[in-house]
Amino acid sequence: MKDTYTLPAAADFHVHLRDGAMAEAVTPTIRQGGAEVAYVMPNLVPPVTTVAAALAYKERLQNIDPSVTYLMTLYLHESITPEVVKEAKKAGISGIKSYPAGVTTNSSSGVISYEPFFPVFKAMEEEGLVLNLHGEVPSDRKGITVLNAEASFLPTLQDLHRRFPKLRIVLEHCTTADAVAAVRSCGDTVVGTITAHHLSLLVDDWAGNALCFCKPVAKTPADRRGLLEAAVNSRGKFFLGTDSAPHDVSAKKGSKAAAGVFTQPYACQYVLAALEDAIERGDIKDEDVTEEFLRGFLGEWGRKFYGIAESNRKIVLKKGGEVIVESIKGAGVEVIPFRSGEPTWSVEWQ
Amino acid sequence: MKDTYTLPAAADFHVHLRDGAMAEAVTPTIRQGGAEVAYVMPNLVPPVTTVAAALAYKERLQNIDPSVTYLMTLYLHESITPEVVKEAKKAGISGIKSYPAGVTTNSSSGVISYEPFFPVFKAMEEEGLVLNLHGEVPSDRKGITVLNAEASFLPTLQDLHRRFPKLRIVLEHCTTADAVAAVRSCGDTVVGTITAHHLSLLVDDWAGNALCFCKPVAKTPADRRGLLEAAVNSRGKFFLGTDSAPHDVSAKKGSKAAAGVFTQPYACQYVLAALEDAIERGDIKDEDVTEEFLRGFLGEWGRKFYGIAESNRKIVLKKGGEVIVESIKGAGVEVIPFRSGEPTWSVEWQ
Repeated sequence: MKDTYTLPAAADFHVHLRDGAMAEAVTPTIRQGGAEVAYVMPNLVPPVTTVAAALAYKERLQNIDPSVTYLMTLYLHESITPEVVKEAKKAGISGIKSYPAGVTTNSSSGVISYEPFFPVFKAMEEEGLVLNLHGEVPSDRKGITVLNAEASFLPTLQDLHRRFPKLRIVLEHCTTADAVAAVRSCGDTVVGTITAHHLSLLVDDWAGNALCFCKPVAKTPADRRGLLEAAVNSRGKFFLGTDSAPHDVSAKKGSKAAAGVFTQPYACQYVLAALEDAIERGDIKDEDVTEEFLRGFLGEWGRKFYGIAESNRKIVLKKGGEVIVESIKGAGVEVIPFRSGEPTWSVEWQ
Repeated sequence: MKDTYTLPAAADFHVHLRDGAMAEAVTPTIRQGGAEVAYVMPNLVPPVTTVAAALAYKERLQNIDPSVTYLMTLYLHESITPEVVKEAKKAGISGIKSYPAGVTTNSSSGVISYEPFFPVFKAMEEEGLVLNLHGEVPSDRKGITVLNAEASFLPTLQDLHRRFPKLRIVLEHCTTADAVAAVRSCGDTVVGTITAHHLSLLVDDWAGNALCFCKPVAKTPADRRGLLEAAVNSRGKFFLGTDSAPHDVSAKKGSKAAAGVFTQPYACQYVLAALEDAIERGDIKDEDVTEEFLRGFLGEWGRKFYGIAESNRKIVLKKGGEVIVESIKGAGVEVIPFRSGEPTWSVEWQ
């Protein structure tokens, strides 16, 4: 790897920006992480289930940082109908996000069975809206745990792809070699996003450490290697969606820590650091990390999948130029970023 | 199951009582949990590696609660020689505990390779000292994680048993169906302890909850079922060692929570509650939970293995008689017990 990369501005195809004071605190960090596009998750409280709510939310985010392009996705919910899909398309909304009920942060309004949504998926396929899948089956304390929740969801992904072969589907935040294989087994309309933190974390990291706990949980060394290989050999099938998920420091303490790793301010930096570590570990080869790959994974491939114009801004990534801040503070909120206090790459905008 | 059981006083064959203020706070809770025998772990700072240190530690515990029988085990360390084994036997020390280096709380002085200890094991075999094994291979971030650390250790258990067939070995705090099978594959000199909390916890419980995080970590529903079946079908091969591990509440917050679940004050109560839940779930049958099993698992089988006299005190366990306290407080220490605030069984001493 080189010590400096000059790349097109990145695009982050899975972010949680929250609302109110938290949004005020974290939205300005998108550009710090090298991204100018943010694909914004709809799991507010209440969830973003209408076009009007999505447009109003987008406007609030634009007021915080107008230099970022916000792509909106609705929360899949019984109130979403084929008519809503058409309306969403007209309003420039990019997709609809499915959360299985109860799986992660603010997913209590989520999906239990997909079949009632088949007419919606049909309309999405026709209109060209993207289906964003949180690909986990809810834990049932009998057979499904956080460890096999993603693998158990994969037949559903493949079934949806068979039923709606032209529907563009994103399996979000893939965490297992099985998920990678399932996405690869599908046609061109199915892709996967990979987070920065899952390129470096293992189950051992979130054992006893709430700051590294997220859903889906990080898994085994073989799974991490599968993600790294998927990324570098992707050719567009996998690209970055950080799933940056800010929680106030208070929600990360105590006996029920909120799930989510906050990576927004160092999105590209974490990816480069994870790639360096993976080379050192032997999971990938130095020659795997080409500029073509970095341009693609960090933005171009996602832009192409979503039909977004190429960037005309550039970022310069330099090795070892920065130390990750202890926390990001806002009005009554404080968020600790992943790997706080550690040295990392720097990002400069040209 | 019945609503009331009158049983011989229990014996807890794996406890962490710490020292100083923490020992003052938690030692008086042994009897509350129904036990009159406590097999005391040696991982103090510095670890208990000499007979003199073990006897002095035992005396400190006796000063706190003289009504409990404390069985002592040394910390396996390069300073332990065959001569120390003989001295330990004469001093009434029961065993020697092996911690693989770096695996859990205060294990930094632990074992890296077993071969240098073969003369010690030979002496233990001859003298009749018990080898207590923390059966995990240290995580290496390549192939070994907290999930397969125990399974990866099992060949070592079987190798030690082959080399020292008369050496009594306890595989402590078994957490997997694989561990149960490995213990069963060995002869009568090899047994396993099972904690109260591993009879109910799953990986999902410690995901984001430091109070349920311990080493070895709780694993899958199939593993939990394996432990429950091992317990009820044990006939002496498996018995209770709670691995109650108190940590001050401050050590359970933040990004690096200490490993350990505190169960001492409700040792028997948690076991009964876990058995009730397992019956309801269908993991075991109601008729599996006989009085003979309860007497054996909670004390008799362990006493027999260690050659301890039977109890002449009785405890009465009653269903639903108590609520688990929010915390146990001492001089500058506060420990939150497992399932604090939940209803549980009561224990009365006859």
